[in-house]
Amino acid sequence: MAVSQTDIDLALRLADAAGAAIRPRFRAEFGLETKADASPVTLADKEAEAAMRRLLVAERPMDGILGEEEGERAGTSGRQWVLDPIDGTRAFIAGRPIFGTLIALVEDGWPVLGIIDQPILRERWLGVVGRPTTLNGQEARTRRCRDLADALLATTSPALFTDDQLHAFEHVDAAVRSTVLGGDCYNYACLASGHLDVVIEAELKLHDFAALVPVVEGAGGRMCDWAGDPLHAASNGEVIAAGDPARIEELVEALACRGGH
Amino acid sequence: MAVSQTDIDLALRLADAAGAAIRPRFRAEFGLETKADASPVTLADKEAEAAMRRLLVAERPMDGILGEEEGERAGTSGRQWVLDPIDGTRAFIAGRPIFGTLIALVEDGWPVLGIIDQPILRERWLGVVGRPTTLNGQEARTRRCRDLADALLATTSPALFTDDQLHAFEHVDAAVRSTVLGGDCYNYACLASGHLDVVIEAELKLHDFAALVPVVEGAGGRMCDWAGDPLHAASNGEVIAAGDPARIEELVEALACRGGH
Repeated sequence: MAVSQTDIDLALRLADAAGAAIRPRFRAEFGLETKADASPVTLADKEAEAAMRRLLVAERPMDGILGEEEGERAGTSGRQWVLDPIDGTRAFIAGRPIFGTLIALVEDGWPVLGIIDQPILRERWLGVVGRPTTLNGQEARTRRCRDLADALLATTSPALFTDDQLHAFEHVDAAVRSTVLGGDCYNYACLASGHLDVVIEAELKLHDFAALVPVVEGAGGRMCDWAGDPLHAASNGEVIAAGDPARIEELVEALACRGGH
Repeated sequence: MAVSQTDIDLALRLADAAGAAIRPRFRAEFGLETKADASPVTLADKEAEAAMRRLLVAERPMDGILGEEEGERAGTSGRQWVLDPIDGTRAFIAGRPIFGTLIALVEDGWPVLGIIDQPILRERWLGVVGRPTTLNGQEARTRRCRDLADALLATTSPALFTDDQLHAFEHVDAAVRSTVLGGDCYNYACLASGHLDVVIEAELKLHDFAALVPVVEGAGGRMCDWAGDPLHAASNGEVIAAGDPARIEELVEALACRGGH
């Protein structure tokens, strides 16, 4: 089932609704709580997700919904809307305007539409399978990277890796020109626009990565798991994004070295 | 010698000049090079510093200048303008609008005026000894933090610590509620505006920290080195910023544990 203009319009309205809920709470009263997994959540996360779910329940009663905060609502259409109202809640709380709202449409487990929306800066990356990715309506393109030694690498936090994953990551970290930390989903958006070459993360949930795939791939990049396989609802959360698909093989190879030797 | 309105006006014009040089190169052709210490530098860094130096040489021939890119120009007034055209060059290169231009006026080694300017978002924090810190003309205040267990901590990258420093930092990291990475000088600005509680870094040069001190302290916070001593041109580059001065003692104590026990 192809992505229709109606799907795209709905996704854009979801992002509008989330942004309207988030903006008044940025650098303001956001009602911080701690979730069972010790990660932070705010009223901005909850209200943004609730706003998106209201739209979906009203307009797409047959589609499933998977949201970071409220979990899963089963559907019957084989399509699922996957929502992360604030990816980078810590950045949001810290007053950094580089968190993002992630909206994905997933068909039979495959992401076919993705939005990375930064509601404070009003930057919106839209990716749809088979179409060029756009940032606020203008085509976004990744850049070539002929040599990993010239690459700019990003990851949100090495503390999110297991020891084995960290060891593997350090192979890539040592091979690239420079590494930046922090950034959350904004790193993938910057990669899609040709400012970063590689993003490597692990332990991502479907709501963290589903929206990223159409954005990055529609901009000319490639995403896969650390084994080189395409990202799917059943992926293990180890994620590589490369602006230049020609670098994927080396990255997969470097990340395969997990032992301490 | 007190900071005059003329000093403040000049500092604001320096920030204007730097921003005008930086904006056209953000997410554009920035001419990346690598410095002798392996850190990146761009034409934006160089042009912004050159623009500020031109103003200073013309208007303050007796004052010294210390800039990250062009080094020191001796003065005879006992006053020195300390400039970091782009603090967070990696963030700038990566397309993140949370780097900053740092401008400080230092008298006999003590920072008495500081600006943290984000030219893309047009956010400007101004701190002057004895005056309230402002963000775009509105007073900025740090927040209270009654318990370190509730604190939000930031540091740009743990890779910038030595092993001993990292060990010490991990004591604080384990004691706080949450830690965010990345951010550079923008962390201190967010702390001054009450969004972050603690920033801990090391290996900072005078051009990295001089501007931060008047901004943070004029907002009600406190900055010092890891021994608890005030920051001065001769400081060793180990820096603590706390939004709530009542937490400084615990932070100094936690950072004193550098051994592996």
